[in-house]
Parts: sequence; C-alpha cells; structure tokens
Amino acid sequence: MFTSIKRFLIGRPLKSTELGEQKLNKTKALAILSSDALSSVAYGPEQILIVLITVGAAAFWYSIPIAVGVLILLLALVLSYRQIIFAYPHGGGAYVVSKENLGIYPGLIAGGSLLVDYILTVAVSVSAGTDAITSAFPSMHPYNVIIAIVFILFITTLNLRGVTESASVLAYPVYLFIFALFILIGVGVYNILTGQIPPDLHTPVGTPVAGISLFLLLKAFSSGSSALTGVEAISNAIPNFKDSAPHNAAKTLIAMGSLLAVLFSGIVFLAYYYGVSPREEVTVVSQIAEQTFGRHFMYFFIQGTTALILILAANTGYSAFPLLAVNLARDRFIPRMFTVRGDRLGYSNGIIILGFLSILLIIAFEGRTEHLIPLYAVGVFIPFTLSQSGMVVKWVREKPKGWLPKLIINSIGALISLTVSMMFFLTKFSQVWPVLVFLPLIIYLFHRIKKHYVAVGNQLSLSTCEPAVQIEGNIIILPVAGITHVVENSLNYAKSLSAHQIIAVYVPFEREDEAIFEAKWNKWQPEVRLVTLHSPYRSIINPLSKFIDTVQRKAGEANFQVTVVIPQFIPKKGWHNILHNQSSLLIRAHLLYRRNVIVTTVPYHLKE
Amino acid sequence: MFTSIKRFLIGRPLKSTELGEQKLNKTKALAILSSDALSSVAYGPEQILIVLITVGAAAFWYSIPIAVGVLILLLALVLSYRQIIFAYPHGGGAYVVSKENLGIYPGLIAGGSLLVDYILTVAVSVSAGTDAITSAFPSMHPYNVIIAIVFILFITTLNLRGVTESASVLAYPVYLFIFALFILIGVGVYNILTGQIPPDLHTPVGTPVAGISLFLLLKAFSSGSSALTGVEAISNAIPNFKDSAPHNAAKTLIAMGSLLAVLFSGIVFLAYYYGVSPREEVTVVSQIAEQTFGRHFMYFFIQGTTALILILAANTGYSAFPLLAVNLARDRFIPRMFTVRGDRLGYSNGIIILGFLSILLIIAFEGRTEHLIPLYAVGVFIPFTLSQSGMVVKWVREKPKGWLPKLIINSIGALISLTVSMMFFLTKFSQVWPVLVFLPLIIYLFHRIKKHYVAVGNQLSLSTCEPAVQIEGNIIILPVAGITHVVENSLNYAKSLSAHQIIAVYVPFEREDEAIFEAKWNKWQPEVRLVTLHSPYRSIINPLSKFIDTVQRKAGEANFQVTVVIPQFIPKKGWHNILHNQSSLLIRAHLLYRRNVIVTTVPYHLKE
Repeated sequence: MFTSIKRFLIGRPLKSTELGEQKLNKTKALAILSSDALSSVAYGPEQILIVLITVGAAAFWYSIPIAVGVLILLLALVLSYRQIIFAYPHGGGAYVVSKENLGIYPGLIAGGSLLVDYILTVAVSVSAGTDAITSAFPSMHPYNVIIAIVFILFITTLNLRGVTESASVLAYPVYLFIFALFILIGVGVYNILTGQIPPDLHTPVGTPVAGISLFLLLKAFSSGSSALTGVEAISNAIPNFKDSAPHNAAKTLIAMGSLLAVLFSGIVFLAYYYGVSPREEVTVVSQIAEQTFGRHFMYFFIQGTTALILILAANTGYSAFPLLAVNLARDRFIPRMFTVRGDRLGYSNGIIILGFLSILLIIAFEGRTEHLIPLYAVGVFIPFTLSQSGMVVKWVREKPKGWLPKLIINSIGALISLTVSMMFFLTKFSQVWPVLVFLPLIIYLFHRIKKHYVAVGNQLSLSTCEPAVQIEGNIIILPVAGITHVVENSLNYAKSLSAHQIIAVYVPFEREDEAIFEAKWNKWQPEVRLVTLHSPYRSIINPLSKFIDTVQRKAGEANFQVTVVIPQFIPKKGWHNILHNQSSLLIRAHLLYRRNVIVTTVPYHLKE
Repeated sequence: MFTSIKRFLIGRPLKSTELGEQKLNKTKALAILSSDALSSVAYGPEQILIVLITVGAAAFWYSIPIAVGVLILLLALVLSYRQIIFAYPHGGGAYVVSKENLGIYPGLIAGGSLLVDYILTVAVSVSAGTDAITSAFPSMHPYNVIIAIVFILFITTLNLRGVTESASVLAYPVYLFIFALFILIGVGVYNILTGQIPPDLHTPVGTPVAGISLFLLLKAFSSGSSALTGVEAISNAIPNFKDSAPHNAAKTLIAMGSLLAVLFSGIVFLAYYYGVSPREEVTVVSQIAEQTFGRHFMYFFIQGTTALILILAANTGYSAFPLLAVNLARDRFIPRMFTVRGDRLGYSNGIIILGFLSILLIIAFEGRTEHLIPLYAVGVFIPFTLSQSGMVVKWVREKPKGWLPKLIINSIGALISLTVSMMFFLTKFSQVWPVLVFLPLIIYLFHRIKKHYVAVGNQLSLSTCEPAVQIEGNIIILPVAGITHVVENSLNYAKSLSAHQIIAVYVPFEREDEAIFEAKWNKWQPEVRLVTLHSPYRSIINPLSKFIDTVQRKAGEANFQVTVVIPQFIPKKGWHNILHNQSSLLIRAHLLYRRNVIVTTVPYHLKE
C-alpha cells in the first residue's frame, strides 16, 4: 500500500547508474536555479520606494542611482561567483570556499546561515505567492496557510521525483514570467519614447529633496539589494549540471545575471517614470502593468506569472539546500542521513526536511512571513561576504596565472557585500537581530554533532579501540510466560546453540502461581533449570534485570557471554498486536539500551 | 526522569498484597460511586419541564405525577440491583447477569452499551461541569475544551493514584453538594409551610391542560428518568468494597437511592411550587436557589458544589469502567491488557483508555456534549432491562427459598426499564439512533477479538498444535556495514555459538566499493565467508531478504535454523540516535515480521 502510493507520487526507483540522466541542461538549470533571484524583481524595486516614500514622493528619483548601485553589486557578485564556480567545481558554494580559505568557523557561519536561509526562502516565497493568489480571490484568504502548505507539499513531491522532472515542470512558468516582464518593459519603454506618457509624472533626477539622509539612502540600497538573494544558488548546485558542469554553470550564471539586470532596471525605470508610489494593497509591478495595459489580458497574465514565480522561487531552496546539506554532512557537521540518495537519486532527506521545516515556519507565522525578508537577505549577504573574502585569500595565497584581476573582482565583491551586511545591521537591526542568536546556536550544534561522530569513529575503529574480548562460552536466559508452543520453540533453539547453561526464568505475581508453575515445569522439562522470581510489584522487567545482572557478573568472570532468548509471537494482522501485552518488545528494548546483553528474538508467526 | 514524574503524579508502586488497603468503606464508596446518580438531580427535573413547556406553563403540574413515576422506577431499580449485588458478589453487573442467564449475546449487548456509556458519562459530565464554571466566568468560555481536558487529566491521575486516594479527595465535594441541596430543600419547604411563598405561582395539580398527550407525557417521563443513570454503578464495582463487600455495597446502594429520591422529589416539588420555567441561560436549580436565598452566599455555594459534582460525576465512570473491562477482558472479548493491575493496584489501562477516549469525544464535539445525554440514557436503560430480565430467568430457573417476591421485584424492574428504553426510541429517535449502529459494531468487534484469542490459544497450546521441529544445526548470517569494532564483536559472538556456518553479508551501492571491501575483508577475516550483494537501487533490506530466503530454503531441507546476527551500536544519549541511520532497527523489524528468521541483536554501547 505505502509502496504503491509512494510509486505513484514520486515514480519508480532509479538505479545509481542512471544518475547521469538526472543532470540538467542550461535551459532547465536556469529555470530552476534562477527562480529565486528573478522573482526578487517582483518586490525588490518596491522595497526601495517604500523606504524613499518616508521623505516624500519627490525623493523617488533617488531610486535610479540606487538601482545603479544594485546593478554594480550584481555585476561584482556574478563575476565573483563565476570565479568560485571554476575554482570549486564540486559545488558547496560559500560553505566550501570559506571553509577552505578562511578556516572552519567562517565556513560554518556561511553554511549555517545559508542552510537557515533556504528554509526562509521557501517559507517566504510560498507565502508571498499565496498572498498574490488570495488577493485576486479574497474568498480564499482564510485558507492562506493551508494553500501555502499544499504548495510546499507539491514542490516537495516534485523535487522527490528528481531534479530533471521538476525542471521540466517548472521551466514553463519561469520563462513565461521572463517573457511577460519583457513585454511589459518593452511596451512601457516604447510608450515613453513615443511620448504617450506625460513626462511630468516624476521629479527630474537631481531635484533637491528636504529630509533626505545618507542613512535613508543606505537603507533603501540595502532593501533594494534583497533582490540579489538567490544569486549564489548556482554555485551550490554545480553537481546537478550536465558535463562539463562548471562551464555550463558559469554560462547559466551569466545568463541569470543579465536577465536580472534587465528586468530589475526596467522595473525601476518604469516605476520612476510613471511616478508609481508604493501602496498597501497593490504591488508596484501591478501598478505599472495596469498603467501600461489597463486591466486587460496582459495585466492578468503578468499578475498570474508573478504569483507563480513567487511560489516557484521556493524551488531554488530545494535545489541548493540538499546539496549544501550533503557537503555539511560529509564533513560530519549534520546527521549522516543527508548524504543518502533516495529512490529517485535526489538527496531525499534534505528535500523532506526542508519541506517540513518551512511548513513549520509558515504555521508558526500563520502565513505572514513578510517581515522575515530582511532576516533572509542578511542571511545571504553574510555568506556572500565570507565566500568573496575566501576567494581573496585564495588568490593571494596561491597566486595562479592572471590572479590580479581575479583578486580585484573578488575584493570588490567582498567589500560591497560586507557593506550591505553592515547596512542591514545598522538600518534594520530590529528585524535582523535573530541572526545573532541562531547563528551561534547552529554552530554550537554543528560542533556537538561533529564531536559525537569523531568520538564514535574512534570507538568503532579497530586501530584505536580496546581489543574485543574473547568469548569462552554462552549462558542462555529464557524468560517464559507459560508452557506453550512458543516456549517449546525457543527452548529447542536455545538447546541447539550448544550453550554452557540454559536458565528458564518465570516471573509470577502471586505466591500460589509460583509453586504451580514450578511443578508443571519440572514435569515438562526436568533437565532445564527453572528460576522463579516472585514480583510483588507486578513488574516483569525489574526482577528480570536484577537476575540478569547477577548472572552476567558471574559469567563475566569466566569470559562467558550472556544471551537472553525472547520468544515473541507475531500475529497475522497488525491490529492483533494490541490484543497481546507485547512485553517481549519492552523487555528487549530495556535490556538492549540499559544493560549490555545480547538479545535473541525467536519469532513465532501465528497462522490465524 | 519519566519514573520520577510518574512517582510524583501517582505515588510509589504498591505491592499486590496491599490490595486490601485499597478497599473502600461505605462513606467513601457512596461518594465516588453515587456522584453520577446524584449529579443527575442537577438536570433531571429540568429535563421534565423542558418537555412540558412545549404545551405551556400550565402543564407544569404534570411534573409531580411524572416524578412519582420516576421514584417508582428508582425504587424498582434499587431493589432489583440490591438482589443482583447478592447474587453476583464479584461485580460485573449487567454484563455478568445477562451473560449467565440470557446468553452470550445479551451479555455483550449489556457490556458493550455500558462500556460506551461510561465514556459518554465522563465526556458529558465534565463538559456540563465546565459549562457551569464558564457561565460564571464568561471570559473563560473560549477555553472550554482545554478546561474540560485538564479536568479529565486531573481525574485520570487521581484514579491512577488508586481508589482510596481518589475517594478521599472526592468525598468532600459530594457530601458538600448533598448538604447544600438539603439546606436548599429544607429552607424552601420551610418557606412554603410558613406561607412566605405566594401559592398562586403554580397551577394546581389536576388542572386540565389543552394539548397534552400521552406521547408528550411519556417523553417527559423518559427525560426525567435520565436522572437514574448511574444507579447500576455500585453493582459493577463490588470488588472495590471492604469486606463483606456485598453487604456494604447493598447498604451503600440503599443510601444512594434514598438520597437520590429525597433530592429529586425535593427539587421537582420546589420547581413546581415556585412555578419555575426552564430558561436557556439559567438552570432550574439556580432559579430555585436564587428565589430561596437571593444572590447571596448560599446561592453561590449551591452553584459551586453543583458545578463540582457535575465534573466529579465523571468519577463514577472511572470506578465502573475498568472493572467492567476486566470482566470483558477475562472472557477475552477485549484486549487482555485491561486485566493488568498498575503500580497502584488500579486497572490502570482501563483508566487511561477511558480518559483518552473521553478527551477525544470532547474534542470531536468541541465540548458541546449536551445532545449526547439521551444517547447515554438509552445506553443505560438497555443494560437495566437486560440485567433485570436475566434475574427473572435466574429466579425462575433456580427457584431458591423465597424466590417469588424477588421474581416480582425484578419483573417490575425489567418491565419499567424496557418501557423507558422503548420510550427513548419512540420519542427521541433522532438522538438515540446511533446506538443501533455502534452496538452491532462493538459486538462484532468483541466477537472478532474472542475469535483471535481462541485461535492463538489453539496455536500455542502444546496439546493441539503441530509438534515443534527439531533443530539439527545453525547457520548464522551477519550483515556488516564496514570493518569496525562492532562487527568484530558480533563476529566473535557468532563464532562462539559453534554454528555450522557463518556468512558475512555486505550490501554495496557501488561496484567499485564491492571489490575494495572484499579485498579488505579477506585480509582481515579470511576464514569467514563474505557474500556481497550489489544493490543498484540503494536498498539494504531487499537484497538481504532475498539472500536470506535462499539460505533459509537450503537450510530448511537439512533442519538447520537460520539466525541473523545484527550488530547495533547504542549511543550514550537518546538524541544521538538521529545522527545514525539506524538501519539495524529497520532490518530487524522487517525480518521478524515478514520472514520467519531468528534475529539476534548484539549491542555495542558507546561510551561517549
């Protein structure tokens, strides 16, 4: 049942050798890895205007220089990450770069913040997309959280089916969105050039504005640069590309950067020229679309594809999170299960946990995750800064051919990223302070996990641990609950093991019962020693454990091993289990976890 | 940790021999076994008026003859159950009486409806009590469900502590309630006799009323007789009494019947004389109290004790349900676990399951369980009828000394109970029909469980089952995941068992891995045969199961037994478990439940 539902949802299992077919070509990779970055166009320009409106609409012209700043930052990031791709072709992005060049803790800071960031990406973008849909159909508004969860489950399932399949599905909406925005920008610019838009809707660039301050401009810039989150995703996901992966990844990165630059500057320019002012209920893109096309087909087309890409931006998280987790798990900072490939060769544990955690976030914030945006932006710029600095260190240390221009590019990238990170802390401290709490926590956790794995490794390795004790003989303890076929079966098995001694143990709750059972036993199996342990408190485990301890102490002196043979009958149907006090399960768990005893379970399958 | 919390909540474990001290004297028994019956006084009279008001306040005088009818029914029930107590001094009440005299199916009908009924009792009375509290403090109204659940958890814990302790706590509110109502009735009657109440508030008995019908009167009568639920509880709980239990139980029953008669007729009479009309927001008892005392201390005292006794009425369910369950479980109609005494000698499984199911009911009905009252009343009158009929059959069959008056009493009891049951179906079918669905379902379930136990008994018994196969030798399969200390340990153990053959099994996911491991193994343990099972789909269980099947087929021909020895390392702390892919647990469960293989777990306790 479970298997066939699973088959239906995620498809037949794939052989490990089919991994190559699960790789992405550039078109598909662009679709699934850039949805996060491109979707930021839907809210990035608006974030700038929201800051500027606090001093008045006259300040809107500042969005043009700010956008230029964002574009420069984008250029620096794309060039820097292009270098990272070639330098670290196995992916891992900021985590690997920082770890190798700056040391383990900077690496963990980068890895930890990205890990949390991808969860935020999924939660924030799915809630934003759901909001976009429910503002179109207000009657669905009360079901926001449920709709968002359904979307996450859908994207999770799609990703469990494998990277190529999700790419095939997701490519359409991404390219439709790009197409829609290109038409919007094209028609908008054409209208302006042909003079159909009155030029007095905006204040000219350079108009002096009362009340403007450097602090405000920095705040607007850092808000605008939240549109650059997602740029690093490609560098994490290089192993998903077709060969030669680094070249394909680099080309995809350049394509994404160019698209992002065109769309971002186009929207900012149109918003400025149209004199669009940010409004609570209607997004800036929606206002531009309405002014350009009216409430016609193209308007709804743009709205629809925007909502879709906001939801699909989550998919970038799904592509990058599992691969980053693999890198962290290989270094033993997070549980090993993240390195296991699932039926469809994706790292399914990472995918499932990402889905689970983002659903938790959405439930915890009741779908209103907007104020997590600054948190998630700062969580990206910290690893940006660390990875660029790592590259700077690398170039200085290794000095390969033509290292100077590379050094300059990464230095500029590092400097701007650092500045943006600082600006977030300076201008939006009230929203980004949780980073200062959870980053140390996560790194402490990483540290504890690593310590445990190292300790386990030492204890298991044949070279470092104490030598195994030789076993000279066996003593078998057989707890019996009655004189039944199950007991006979287990006793036969115990006898076949040529043990040194077999002790049957019976735990009666009443004194009368004790004598009756002893008599019966001695008639049935006179040659097997029976020990009865009267239990006035009606516990089976306590007297049994004490008895085993005693036997074990004596056995240990002679290098004898104690084995407890537990008869367990297994009903034909699962629900029958509640009809039997499965004390054998309890006894087994207790003995294994609390005492150092070998436990043998002899199953007895019921036929009816 | 768990143990000390448990100790704190329910106290230290008691020895089986301390059972005698857990018995109840009459005062305490009256408190905990009559709370259900006595609390009905708080709503029984009201139920009569609610039916009568449909033809107008002039019809209220009919409440007097109806109350007389209810009192006659009460008398018949008390006398009949008194006879049941002496005839069946080991308790079990309606179930045992019906089973022994009428046959197994009537017994199961009685037992099944009482079992469900006690769950309804708990849910209905706790919700009613919570309602009484939150109508006094309306700001708490939104938390109704949570408050009700807290009360159930409290009563459950109290009952887990043992019968005597819960009786000590619960005796106070019960006697306070009786005391409060006695004062109310006394002062009310005094006021009437001294002429302080105008005699024109009520229509005289015998006034002709237009629109009154036999159907309506029957409906009012059946509503009023819902005040008699709980009368049977004492006959179920005889084993909880001090010696000689039947005599004490009988005396307690008479005391309860008398109290119930006085309180019920007092409230009906005052309500009639004061001309109280049932109102949505204020209960009849509350109106009487207000007219008698004004909104003074005594009014609030009566309100408070009423709320308390409504909640504590649940306790009757807790006293009777576990004992009824023991009887059903001994006859193997419900899981055997209900017969196990807990640390404090109560039948803790019954107590816990009763609490759990009534919490579920409250959550499902969001605390509005009022319309379950008729359902629960009919669920009592069906067993009433069956047990009285059973007694009739018993007297006719056995004809002991002085059987005729006994026969007459039980015949009258049976007849009236049958009439009331029929009235419920006739007058309130829309509310009681679920009985017709769930009773057959429950009896079918009882039947299935019994069938399973009988089948298991036959399969386990040495006399009826096929003889056990002799074991000629052992083949040990040892799944290995690497060359570690854990594997070395398990291998040493396997070698000590003087098995016929030991086969180590390794499941590599990659072809390269296979060759490397084989080479390593042959260097380390050249004398132990290694089988590698390449698993292209990265499953360990599937190839392993197939291999075990093959080995088992061959081994079976030579009467060899196959044992799988699974190394399992046990981390020092519980949370460490998620850091390890505990495949050994999965493999073990799969092999035990799906295949007929003996599984030996060799624990390896990590020290760090």
